Amino acid sequence: MDERVQKVLDYIEAHKDEYVALLQRFCRQPSLANTGEGIAEMSEMVRAELEKLGANPQVFETGGSPFVYGEIKGETDRTFGFYDHYDVQPVDPLNEWHTDPFAAEIIDGVIYARGVADNKDGLVTRLCAVDAWQKVHGTLPLNVKFLFEGEEEIGSPHLLPFAEAHPDLIQCDGYVWEGGNREPGGPAELTMGVKGLLYVELYSTVSEKDAHSMYAAITPSATWRLVQALNTLKDRDGKILIDGFYDGIKPVSQAEKDALKTDVFNESAVKEILGIEKFIGDAHGEDLLMSLYYKPTCNICGITAGYQGEGSKTVLPGKASCKIDFRLVPGQDPNRILELLRAHLDKHGFEDIKIECHSGCLAHRSDPEAPFCKAVIRSMKKLFNEQPCVQCTSGGTSPMYAFCAKTNIPAIMFGSSSESANIHAPNEHLAVNAFIDMIRINVTVMHEFAVQE
Amino acid sequence: MDERVQKVLDYIEAHKDEYVALLQRFCRQPSLANTGEGIAEMSEMVRAELEKLGANPQVFETGGSPFVYGEIKGETDRTFGFYDHYDVQPVDPLNEWHTDPFAAEIIDGVIYARGVADNKDGLVTRLCAVDAWQKVHGTLPLNVKFLFEGEEEIGSPHLLPFAEAHPDLIQCDGYVWEGGNREPGGPAELTMGVKGLLYVELYSTVSEKDAHSMYAAITPSATWRLVQALNTLKDRDGKILIDGFYDGIKPVSQAEKDALKTDVFNESAVKEILGIEKFIGDAHGEDLLMSLYYKPTCNICGITAGYQGEGSKTVLPGKASCKIDFRLVPGQDPNRILELLRAHLDKHGFEDIKIECHSGCLAHRSDPEAPFCKAVIRSMKKLFNEQPCVQCTSGGTSPMYAFCAKTNIPAIMFGSSSESANIHAPNEHLAVNAFIDMIRINVTVMHEFAVQE
Repeated sequence: MDERVQKVLDYIEAHKDEYVALLQRFCRQPSLANTGEGIAEMSEMVRAELEKLGANPQVFETGGSPFVYGEIKGETDRTFGFYDHYDVQPVDPLNEWHTDPFAAEIIDGVIYARGVADNKDGLVTRLCAVDAWQKVHGTLPLNVKFLFEGEEEIGSPHLLPFAEAHPDLIQCDGYVWEGGNREPGGPAELTMGVKGLLYVELYSTVSEKDAHSMYAAITPSATWRLVQALNTLKDRDGKILIDGFYDGIKPVSQAEKDALKTDVFNESAVKEILGIEKFIGDAHGEDLLMSLYYKPTCNICGITAGYQGEGSKTVLPGKASCKIDFRLVPGQDPNRILELLRAHLDKHGFEDIKIECHSGCLAHRSDPEAPFCKAVIRSMKKLFNEQPCVQCTSGGTSPMYAFCAKTNIPAIMFGSSSESANIHAPNEHLAVNAFIDMIRINVTVMHEFAVQE
Repeated sequence: MDERVQKVLDYIEAHKDEYVALLQRFCRQPSLANTGEGIAEMSEMVRAELEKLGANPQVFETGGSPFVYGEIKGETDRTFGFYDHYDVQPVDPLNEWHTDPFAAEIIDGVIYARGVADNKDGLVTRLCAVDAWQKVHGTLPLNVKFLFEGEEEIGSPHLLPFAEAHPDLIQCDGYVWEGGNREPGGPAELTMGVKGLLYVELYSTVSEKDAHSMYAAITPSATWRLVQALNTLKDRDGKILIDGFYDGIKPVSQAEKDALKTDVFNESAVKEILGIEKFIGDAHGEDLLMSLYYKPTCNICGITAGYQGEGSKTVLPGKASCKIDFRLVPGQDPNRILELLRAHLDKHGFEDIKIECHSGCLAHRSDPEAPFCKAVIRSMKKLFNEQPCVQCTSGGTSPMYAFCAKTNIPAIMFGSSSESANIHAPNEHLAVNAFIDMIRINVTVMHEFAVQE
């Protein structure tokens, strides 16, 4: 390990009780975005810590939880963005907790608290890494920006507006984005992108009322119409039949394909979790991961019409509706897909099917060969003596797109939490050692990116 | 009018207060099949009246409400079957009634009571017609059988078992079946059949649990599978694509086509009731009625999968299901259609879609040229000086099939109730005059059938 880094790591080792105490202090402050409880106190606590680091914090009112921003100039022109959130999920069901969710008790080397693994750990490790580096070297190896929101757990409603209002503030050379896992015995998992999303609801309406089904011989059926319209969207092999749907999709690069070889996706474990016997087409290995990460989808989230109770009721429903999410990949614009969907339905004679758009966002995929990504991968190898698992994208969608999709800034989620950390659930927890490891990762990554050619 | 009939009609006119009092007495006895309230008292009241008429009543226990049977020999070998039911719908919402639903009050010539128009009126008019004829002539012009059940309002669960256990008792030359309408200013409406029914539920199951929709790229979708399976059942023109579905259907006779000319189906009124702008294919006139009465259907009564609340949830449902009713026509056997449906799904690669059969029953259509039907049509012309509306079948299904489908006994629903009689609703009512008219119809029909060549 580079000597400059090692000094900082030694400092962390010597001051770890102090850093753990900071994490506990953060965890003891409730900060529930859904109710607003503790949000003001928490955002002030974040601001005050940034002040101590000399980050000139600014607090932006959003209409919801405030956005806390800070920046520190370093030795090089390169700039890190740290994105984290200081809000947490609700604690219910409270009676399933073995500790007070805001006590941050440490039991056998594990801290139990709401938010300790999602994402107060991440936020605090940025502060600690910067603090340690400054204490040892008096400065930082590169510029850092802190971009901390307080509404991630309610869908980040003000993140994109913030990004659009402050294009200068969100500019940087690479984002360290929230948390990630390093399972016991497994490599660190790096997630470098997200899929986009278009969420629509389709409505087929023939009448405001349901009819006796004896009239089915003469009365148009909203449900059959919806079924027929849906059936034009996708063939039985899963190909999406909307004209232009696949146009402009950014090809999967060799580096993105190569990254699949590092993946630790456990097929049998995932099948068990999903409760399925086979994946689509009985796919395995890289074929399976190519689909999971790089293919767009058209999924029915829900469909409803008519009678849904026990037994039978002879009714002809007047209305039918269906919720669909399209997971999109880089090169697909949700607004354009929405237009194509409308044109598709019209072309197939379904002008009467109404589309309501619930939400849309762009995909983002970082190039694993970008200097930032290479620096993070290298850091993990150095720290843990093993190849990390590189996922160029998640199969899901996160607010990452708000800062990264249009700017094309690389972003990586990494951390030392675990699938078993009970995030969003009772008894959320994180090992003290994992927390300290995470500070070490941040320190190493800052250095590696700063010295990267 | 024939002199023998006229004498009976005169007797009825002279004794109408007595007959109205009998109807009131019947209506004052609650008889709720769904709770059993008053069923024992009501069935005994029915039995006692049949006893007075010399019908040697027999009470058959069914496991539910008892079945009350009686028969009287008449002057000819021809036999009438009177099918009615002595049970009634529940009365709730009670606070919407303007009278006590079991008081049978007469206000401005109208009787208000639960069951007064469905179907205590029908049952009592049979008793009155027979009584009047016997009082005047000392005998009856033909044999009559009374077949009164007490579970029609809960779906007649024991009617088919009764019919199968007593094939001799249900044998006759024609059934007068429950009630029917004669709207103010309109002709009497005769309904001479019912459609059959096959009610199934289709289940598509991939997993017992729902998944995060990010997995849609690799996890089979139960909902898409159901949509695809459904889409193979029917084309966009409404043709049902199950091999053999239309095989063996009894052709529509010229007499059945001719009957359509007598129909009083009010297209604009029905469209308004259904809340639709157009019928399927913008059909009108006889084309429309050909579909309504003589075409089988495949209707989606309900479909459900996944998230159905407000807004969006990105979920991949593990299960999807759909309720379908097929309305069948004579020549189609629901058991065979069920087999064909299974074979169809298998042939199209949907062996995994499970079918649950909720119920099945046969269609029945009386020949409008059968002596019994001609006698009823002639009776209406004589009594009201106008052509009745002849529907060789309803578009719906009723327990008529239990007695008539396999025996092929003609059956006719007629009466003098109205669409506005609030059957199954608060303030059910019937005009006293309509009730008396109904007795007159029964008398005339008995005579016309007895003297028919």
